[in-house]
Amino acid sequence: MSRPKIAILGAGYGGIMTAARLQKEMGTNEVEVTLVNKHDYHYQTTWLHEPAAGTMHHDKTRIMINDVIDTNKIKFVKDTVVEVKPDEKRVILSKGELVYDYLVLALGFEPATFGIKGLKENAFSIRSVNSVRKIREHIEYQFASYNNESERRDDLLTIIVGGAGFTGIEFVGELAERVPELCKEFDIPRDRVKIINVEASPTVLPGFDEELVEYAMNLLERKGVEFRTNTMIKEVTEDGVILGEDEEVKSATVVWTGGVQGNSIVANSGFETNRGRVPVRKDQRTPDYDNVFVVGDCALLINEEINRPYPPTAQVAIQAAGTVSKNLLSLVRGNELESFTPDIKGTVASLGKGEAIGKVGNKKLYGSTASAMKKIIDNRYLFMLGGPGLVWKKGKLKLF
Amino acid sequence: MSRPKIAILGAGYGGIMTAARLQKEMGTNEVEVTLVNKHDYHYQTTWLHEPAAGTMHHDKTRIMINDVIDTNKIKFVKDTVVEVKPDEKRVILSKGELVYDYLVLALGFEPATFGIKGLKENAFSIRSVNSVRKIREHIEYQFASYNNESERRDDLLTIIVGGAGFTGIEFVGELAERVPELCKEFDIPRDRVKIINVEASPTVLPGFDEELVEYAMNLLERKGVEFRTNTMIKEVTEDGVILGEDEEVKSATVVWTGGVQGNSIVANSGFETNRGRVPVRKDQRTPDYDNVFVVGDCALLINEEINRPYPPTAQVAIQAAGTVSKNLLSLVRGNELESFTPDIKGTVASLGKGEAIGKVGNKKLYGSTASAMKKIIDNRYLFMLGGPGLVWKKGKLKLF
Repeated sequence: MSRPKIAILGAGYGGIMTAARLQKEMGTNEVEVTLVNKHDYHYQTTWLHEPAAGTMHHDKTRIMINDVIDTNKIKFVKDTVVEVKPDEKRVILSKGELVYDYLVLALGFEPATFGIKGLKENAFSIRSVNSVRKIREHIEYQFASYNNESERRDDLLTIIVGGAGFTGIEFVGELAERVPELCKEFDIPRDRVKIINVEASPTVLPGFDEELVEYAMNLLERKGVEFRTNTMIKEVTEDGVILGEDEEVKSATVVWTGGVQGNSIVANSGFETNRGRVPVRKDQRTPDYDNVFVVGDCALLINEEINRPYPPTAQVAIQAAGTVSKNLLSLVRGNELESFTPDIKGTVASLGKGEAIGKVGNKKLYGSTASAMKKIIDNRYLFMLGGPGLVWKKGKLKLF
Repeated sequence: MSRPKIAILGAGYGGIMTAARLQKEMGTNEVEVTLVNKHDYHYQTTWLHEPAAGTMHHDKTRIMINDVIDTNKIKFVKDTVVEVKPDEKRVILSKGELVYDYLVLALGFEPATFGIKGLKENAFSIRSVNSVRKIREHIEYQFASYNNESERRDDLLTIIVGGAGFTGIEFVGELAERVPELCKEFDIPRDRVKIINVEASPTVLPGFDEELVEYAMNLLERKGVEFRTNTMIKEVTEDGVILGEDEEVKSATVVWTGGVQGNSIVANSGFETNRGRVPVRKDQRTPDYDNVFVVGDCALLINEEINRPYPPTAQVAIQAAGTVSKNLLSLVRGNELESFTPDIKGTVASLGKGEAIGKVGNKKLYGSTASAMKKIIDNRYLFMLGGPGLVWKKGKLKLF
């Protein structure tokens, strides 16, 4: 008799943690697990604002899959998912196919463009090692070009970041660190460079503690970040952005962090979705398929206390992976499935080197304490995924 | 009585060496010397192929002018020369003017395009710190873009170097060193990258020793450089190059090293020139003005032994500067001027890390010996310009 086949699509936070947990918890020859991922590495999406700005090397954010997954126990397939056929229990890959008994959809996010004209064509997004390497090199190239132009082109030195959520704020924080280095490298006076954060809401980090938000804005403004809150981006052009009231700001670099949605492969495969996210059952299964789980950014989870969705964070994805791996084995073993409720331990946003803001429980954190807490959270994930060795190799070891 | 005014235009090899020599040889209050340069730094033009490829940081090639020139003795003006009015003994700068009694034209080279269509618009050239920083960043950006494209775009990884003279050969040598690093950095298989050197002559390094040329070509071919000799570039487009016989090679990076001419300011100021170079008298003065000297790439010097011009090299410029500084003081003092004859001690071309070819006298040099000799030559110049301290700061100290 052949073993039940489990396919995990995607090796982001949700997918790789599901695989790592299964590897530990499954019995010998109990199931046959296949992990599919576009690259042979996993990366820390929540760190990508750093290599995007150029303040960290991108290799620090990535972890080879066979460093944390025993490929004798779990089969790894490096390929791109094209479509899922849930009624046929089949996955179409770009170079082949896969059949499964149980499926885990862990395909991550893509940028939500909200129909903003030209955004997809002309703005960068912080989504992968490939995309952030390109952002870093693009910015450097604009700086390198500046002193070769016969006329002063301020647009080369104007960086517009759309969106003031976590990624947007963390990214401008890193840019504020990086810009003085770039100015030195390319002989450019600092005051010629503009970092502009544009946000449609009346405030940055909407929903976050007001006092902490004020601390963050003051700090970042002192470091040279300009905030344009209450401001819509109407269009992104080849030359920059058109803001509400038809104001044009010329800029060679527009980075969009204003929103994410579930990977469109999920909706395109016929699953019921809401902005690309599947409104999962308590046990993380899709409404329509008893053998399909969703984990991470493609899952829509309602926080019943406030009747609003949980934000799609790494923290929630990692916790959900624990439930998904248990429930997969329970299904195979004929046991009852458990329900998932996120346990939000806290939220910390970095603001460049040695600075952050955060809430852990009801406690507000600032400055170097918050920054150290952020690194502890990052290291904790590495510990869960790959033990102390992985913390040593890829962790943020200088807490202060 | 006011002191005679000497103006030196340009702080390349010829200009800065003239200034450094004058500083040593002139009497107290004997003359008033002004050095004009676009930047507040001098740079080693003959090293620029290294920062262009990214194998050396550009700061290593530059030397702050006030590190080698005592600005209490010699006035430094950071400005751009617009035009010289030799009949009025006046220099028009972008932000002012300068009057002189004696003038030294040391304005360096610009790329010679030989009327090749699109070359000026679409090709890079290795001519300044600014230009090579841009080349380096441009190449990196193409590599960073490659894995973000949905279709494989080989043109992003194709680098065409036009011209197989010294700069062209030295540049492809450095590229061959750099490409494997770039491949690692951006997750690209080495065999997708092409470095193509295109040369109209039947051979690379035309005029150089045949045995050495063969050594160089074999070595560079082993490192992945493709040579297209006997091949004209007919046009440079936005997409690449059109070669003779209308063959198109798509390439995102075209670097032209195929020829240089004297700075066009010289001809535009009414001096008699031949490809931008002034056919100077034996004492380095222009044919028409007894108070105007030319040194370096703007001077055309005939080697009477073979009745052909000396190539415009750093070696010749540095030697000529010695004659020019002496002759300036002789003019002021009413003494006879001396004639200049270059003393070509040897020529070495680097072929990437630890490899070179060269001739010193009649002796042929290869491999690490030639490479060490090249570094000794480079260090010798630094010694002449700024003594042992400058060798220590900016020299190539690892000979092997």
